[in-house]
Amino acid sequence: MQNIKVAVDAVVFGYKDEQLFLLCIKQKFGPLKGHWVLPGGLVKDKERLQEAVIRELLEETNVEVEYLEQLYTFGDTLDRDPRGRVITVTYLGLVNPEGLKIKAATDAMDAKWFSVEKLPSLGFDHNEIVAKGLERLRSKVHYEPIGFDLLNPIFYMAELEGLYRTLTRRDFDRRNFRRKILRLGLLEDLGIFSSPGKGRPANKYRFIEQRFKELQEEGFQFEIKFS
Amino acid sequence: MQNIKVAVDAVVFGYKDEQLFLLCIKQKFGPLKGHWVLPGGLVKDKERLQEAVIRELLEETNVEVEYLEQLYTFGDTLDRDPRGRVITVTYLGLVNPEGLKIKAATDAMDAKWFSVEKLPSLGFDHNEIVAKGLERLRSKVHYEPIGFDLLNPIFYMAELEGLYRTLTRRDFDRRNFRRKILRLGLLEDLGIFSSPGKGRPANKYRFIEQRFKELQEEGFQFEIKFS
Repeated sequence: MQNIKVAVDAVVFGYKDEQLFLLCIKQKFGPLKGHWVLPGGLVKDKERLQEAVIRELLEETNVEVEYLEQLYTFGDTLDRDPRGRVITVTYLGLVNPEGLKIKAATDAMDAKWFSVEKLPSLGFDHNEIVAKGLERLRSKVHYEPIGFDLLNPIFYMAELEGLYRTLTRRDFDRRNFRRKILRLGLLEDLGIFSSPGKGRPANKYRFIEQRFKELQEEGFQFEIKFS
Repeated sequence: MQNIKVAVDAVVFGYKDEQLFLLCIKQKFGPLKGHWVLPGGLVKDKERLQEAVIRELLEETNVEVEYLEQLYTFGDTLDRDPRGRVITVTYLGLVNPEGLKIKAATDAMDAKWFSVEKLPSLGFDHNEIVAKGLERLRSKVHYEPIGFDLLNPIFYMAELEGLYRTLTRRDFDRRNFRRKILRLGLLEDLGIFSSPGKGRPANKYRFIEQRFKELQEEGFQFEIKFS
C-alpha cells in the first residue's frame, strides 16, 4: 500500500509599476502555523489537479487567476513536509492585482502580496518553488510574448515595455521590441489616448487573444534584442 | 484520508537515420495485459520521483537514459487508470539507441522501439503523454540547442543537421545553422575524418557539456532560421 499524499501549490505573480509581486498566505494550522507559504493544499479524491489549485486559491486568498499553467512536481525531497511524504504539483498563475480584493479564509489567517525582491523566508520548500516559477516566467518571456494577463486590458506600449524590462531584468532595444511585437499582429491599436498628468498622449493597445492562440500553434518567431 | 496513487512514466526517445523512436513495453499483468504502454509504475514510499523513473526504466527495459527531465503531471482525468485514481509524473528521456540492449523484465513481457511516425495505440492515456513529450522536444529545439544525447559522442555536422531536420520537421537554412551553432562555442572541432563509403571527408565534432551548462545560465540566444 503506497503512503504518499498529493498536494497542489500555486505560485501566483502580480505586477504593478515595474515590480513583480508574489501572493502568499499565512498558515493558520499545522506545524508551520504563523509562517508565510504559498496558497495550496491536498487534492480531493474526485478532483482534477487544476480544479484543486483553483479551489485552494479561491478559498485561501479569494483570488481567481487569469492565467494558469502547470509548473513542476516537487517530490525528490522526501521530508519536504514534516507531516509525512507529500508530493506537490505546482502551478504558475498570473493576475493583474489592480482592483483585486484578496481575503484570507479556511487554512489561511492572512493573505498578502510580497515584492519578489523582498520575499520572506517561506515555509516548506516554497522558496525553491518560487525560484522555479520565476525561472519559468523569465525564460518564457524570451521566446514567447507572455505576461499580458499582468497588465490592464488596455495599455500603453510604455507599460508593456516596463513589464518586459521587469521580467527580463535588462534594458532592451525598444524600437526593435515595438517593431517585433507589432509585426506579430498580437496587438490591436486603439488610437491615441491622453491621460491627465501622465505625459504626452500616446497610443493604447489591446491584446488579441485569438491571434496569440494561432501563434502558439504556428510557433513564435520572437526574440528580444537587448541594448 | 486521501486515496490517490502516484506513478511515474517515461517518454524515452531515440534517434537513428533521420527517424525518431519511442521506447515502449508490453504489459505483463493487470487490466491492460498484452497492451503496449510507456515504461513506468508506482513510486515507492521512500523513493524520489526521479529515482522511481530510473528504476522502472532499468527494470522494465534495461535502458539507462543519458538525458532526463520532468515533463508534466497527468492528473486531470480521474479515470485514466481502471484500477483507481492514479496521477502520473511523466519524464522525457533521450538516449542514443546505438549499441543499447533493451530487455524486458518485471512488469514487462516485451520492450521495443517504435518509430514515432507509426506508433501503436497505447494503453491508458499514454498516446496523450507521448504527444506532450514530442511537443516539448520539438518546441525546445527552437530556442535551445538540445538533442546531443541522441547522437554518437562524435558526429559530422551533417548528422547534427539531420537530427534537427527530423526534430523540427522542416528544412532550415544550413549555413545559418552552422554559423549559429559554432558561434555558441558548443562544439569542439576534431578535424577532418574520412569514413569508407560515406562520401567525402568532413569535420567531426564533439559536444562540450560544460559550455552548454554555462549557456543555460546565461540564456541561449539561439534561433533556427527556416529556409
